[in-house]
Amino acid sequence: MNGAESLVRTLLAGGVDTVFANPGTSEMHFVAALDRFPALRCVPALDEGVVTGAADGYARMAGKPAATLLHCGPGLMNGLANLHNARRARTPVVNLVGDQATHHRPLDAPLTADTEALARTVSAWVRTSSAVHAVGADAAAAIAAARTAPGGIASLILPSDVCWNEGGVVGTPRAPAAPAPVADETVRAIAALIERGEPTLLLVGGEALDAHGLHTASRLEEIDNVRVMAPMSNRRVARGREAADIARVPYAVDAALKAMAGVKHLVLVEAAPPVTFFAYPGKPGTQLPPGTEVHVLAQPDEDGGGALRALAERLGAPLLQRVAPTAPPPARGAITPETLAQSLAALLPEQAVVVDEGVTVGRAMFSMLAAAAPHDWLQLCGGAIGEGIPMATGAALGAPGRRIVGLQADGSALYTLQGLWTQARMGLDVTTVIFANRRYAILQGELAAVGAQPGPATNAMFELQRPDLDWVKLAGGFGVEAERADTMAQFNDLFTRSMARKGPFLIEAVL
Amino acid sequence: MNGAESLVRTLLAGGVDTVFANPGTSEMHFVAALDRFPALRCVPALDEGVVTGAADGYARMAGKPAATLLHCGPGLMNGLANLHNARRARTPVVNLVGDQATHHRPLDAPLTADTEALARTVSAWVRTSSAVHAVGADAAAAIAAARTAPGGIASLILPSDVCWNEGGVVGTPRAPAAPAPVADETVRAIAALIERGEPTLLLVGGEALDAHGLHTASRLEEIDNVRVMAPMSNRRVARGREAADIARVPYAVDAALKAMAGVKHLVLVEAAPPVTFFAYPGKPGTQLPPGTEVHVLAQPDEDGGGALRALAERLGAPLLQRVAPTAPPPARGAITPETLAQSLAALLPEQAVVVDEGVTVGRAMFSMLAAAAPHDWLQLCGGAIGEGIPMATGAALGAPGRRIVGLQADGSALYTLQGLWTQARMGLDVTTVIFANRRYAILQGELAAVGAQPGPATNAMFELQRPDLDWVKLAGGFGVEAERADTMAQFNDLFTRSMARKGPFLIEAVL
Repeated sequence: MNGAESLVRTLLAGGVDTVFANPGTSEMHFVAALDRFPALRCVPALDEGVVTGAADGYARMAGKPAATLLHCGPGLMNGLANLHNARRARTPVVNLVGDQATHHRPLDAPLTADTEALARTVSAWVRTSSAVHAVGADAAAAIAAARTAPGGIASLILPSDVCWNEGGVVGTPRAPAAPAPVADETVRAIAALIERGEPTLLLVGGEALDAHGLHTASRLEEIDNVRVMAPMSNRRVARGREAADIARVPYAVDAALKAMAGVKHLVLVEAAPPVTFFAYPGKPGTQLPPGTEVHVLAQPDEDGGGALRALAERLGAPLLQRVAPTAPPPARGAITPETLAQSLAALLPEQAVVVDEGVTVGRAMFSMLAAAAPHDWLQLCGGAIGEGIPMATGAALGAPGRRIVGLQADGSALYTLQGLWTQARMGLDVTTVIFANRRYAILQGELAAVGAQPGPATNAMFELQRPDLDWVKLAGGFGVEAERADTMAQFNDLFTRSMARKGPFLIEAVL
Repeated sequence: MNGAESLVRTLLAGGVDTVFANPGTSEMHFVAALDRFPALRCVPALDEGVVTGAADGYARMAGKPAATLLHCGPGLMNGLANLHNARRARTPVVNLVGDQATHHRPLDAPLTADTEALARTVSAWVRTSSAVHAVGADAAAAIAAARTAPGGIASLILPSDVCWNEGGVVGTPRAPAAPAPVADETVRAIAALIERGEPTLLLVGGEALDAHGLHTASRLEEIDNVRVMAPMSNRRVARGREAADIARVPYAVDAALKAMAGVKHLVLVEAAPPVTFFAYPGKPGTQLPPGTEVHVLAQPDEDGGGALRALAERLGAPLLQRVAPTAPPPARGAITPETLAQSLAALLPEQAVVVDEGVTVGRAMFSMLAAAAPHDWLQLCGGAIGEGIPMATGAALGAPGRRIVGLQADGSALYTLQGLWTQARMGLDVTTVIFANRRYAILQGELAAVGAQPGPATNAMFELQRPDLDWVKLAGGFGVEAERADTMAQFNDLFTRSMARKGPFLIEAVL
């Protein structure tokens, strides 16, 4: 058994059966092993940003990691941004990077780069397999590292000779550890804090944003001095009319400051203290009112949902009879962020998975879809735009039988539109809605926020025009059927039809 | 004057007047300054791989660096692969990376990453501007570092507050240093070596591959025991019927070993000793025959062309009367690598700039175009595929008035096809020829070279099919007119017409 085969066998033994791949020469022995292991599903992608974003989306829905397969340092470079996003989402990823043979590396061949240094910028765990007999054990360690709560990127670098040499040994998978329970005294302390009656905000993130956690949080919110919010960006949130609604920390610094006003105590539940994406001249970098005391109920690697339940019991939080909201009818007329949100709330199918890279156009949709059919909501967590299409691609493979709906800003979509081909190739049930406002609208807002005054040359840098991008052609070029909507009537019709069909579809919604 | 303005003024003072940009919030003050400095040309790109590949192509033709403008660590991540390629080409690039404000960085906002660590993997010089008054001096130092022979990546990281604060000071540009002359004793020693009469190979790279250097090398090749070759991949080579022809070290290890057979002495002229791109089981990693002695006539930062001339004088190399080769007529019949090369040799216009990312289909074209009209030949030097379209984009801006011809493998083109939009937006005279063999043909060869046997699952990873990519639609989606050629007659017609028109055009040549 060569090293590549020991790797494949270890992946399968550890429950990793999906690999997103853009391989090169140094990965050929892995690829050559595919025919002997039909249980391993290898998904081709046209570039590495698709590979890594898909691995993020897959794991969020499958609840277990996928592997990537990247080619040397430069292949890793291309995949880093979506690994950065996955790192911020705390998504488990087994990140496999082929590399030069150990004896070839000192020759500094053209593709040679500092692969370990690159991997360290996004990884919780990095190792280079140094010998064929170690590959299996290294792969088992990588799977365990990726699955260690709350989840992270485990990068395993594989010189080609350790894969082609004979002498591989299958690694022994370790059972993933469950998140640690929160200590009783911590729950008691937070309960005592809340009982003081001062304005307290529970910031709930991570796994605690599942339906159960949200329900418990909404019970706690019935206590007079308690409010509940989620971070701006989250790995996965249970949403729709059957789930308890939750507000998020607003993106814009002024809106966030307003939302946080009056808070005396911030209690973190699998969340980090909120900070703005960027600094702005003369504005604070954190949205917390000065003097806010920060407390921790559950660290990201702890069982926040369980801690919330213990807290609710201790405080005698009421059991709620929720009245499910009613979705509005589909919107008519012109396409705007609001009419799109209204129609999506009306037309989203049961158990859809929404992948939100809507940026400016999409920002209000989260709250407006609270009345939609039950669904999950996945977000870009690291701010590196260009993850939506890949994440939708991976989510489709991680959640078979569910329709994926990508809410997709046009500027962001252009980084990794290559993922459409993988959707076509794999026949994935993904509907991508391109919000075609034909500009980097967020940057126009950011420019104003930093106090700069644009003229024509500056404004030209924010255009996605002259020429317009034609998303019907772009999608068609990748083999994905697409149509343009200029009115809400057209959008409603296209969206409804796409929900009823198999395979990918793209709607260019022109705002 | 704020820091951003001091930066712009320093760039212009240092001769850097072209910026390829994909900016974000942290770069807004730079973008806001554009209206005040019309001399600075800011070229928008849809992703960062286009930015950095274009900067590489620009500098190769303009003979001076462009600047990039990238957004934080993740923006840099997306641009790293083509910076890696530029590094291997020894192209000067002033790599500007905006970043979190100094006081915001400790808050670990979502986009925060280890920007310096990322930059170090591709850069000859890295600095983070720490205060507004230092920005100008830092920018001047970056320009000087990029232009220090033989050229390299100078990465200047700019926290947003040092750009928006007042107190900027324009930096003083330094005149770029000319490459150092080679010492007389070195020339004498190499002359004495050649006079021993043993088989000697001059490996000529870098700036010595201009028309003058090639002419001198061809004179030296008239000496019985001297042969001349260029490395496999080169920044820029003067080519066509008026330039002296030169062979390159073959890509395939066996062919390279054969080409090098019998060599006793290797003399390096602005070149590194040849190594294979990859190791293969049981094969050597260098193409040099065992026992070959390696000598250096000129280091990459020295004046190799001058050293060749001194050597030719010293050895009394004959002055040649070249007979210019005659181009064949355009080919007819089916589209193959050979017929494409024949037609290109016939139809290439005077002073074209060929950007070669042809990979398997394109590999033989370099030699077959020796009979074409005079042109320059630019190659991917770092092996990270996905640079052709960006490089062509930048080359067009660096060589105004010349037609750019991109010889482009389809698999490689798919990484950074977004560059087509910049070509349309800027109205660039670029003709891209997509070699649509609809597979990763190189990987099929590499798989055989490592001795692996593919089955259907493995072969499926090499396909660019099911569905086919439609390049006419893809180009059209980005606003670039395109047509498909299924025969050489169609190709000849499309190619000829595209040479006569302004602006970009794409030909999908289906093999």
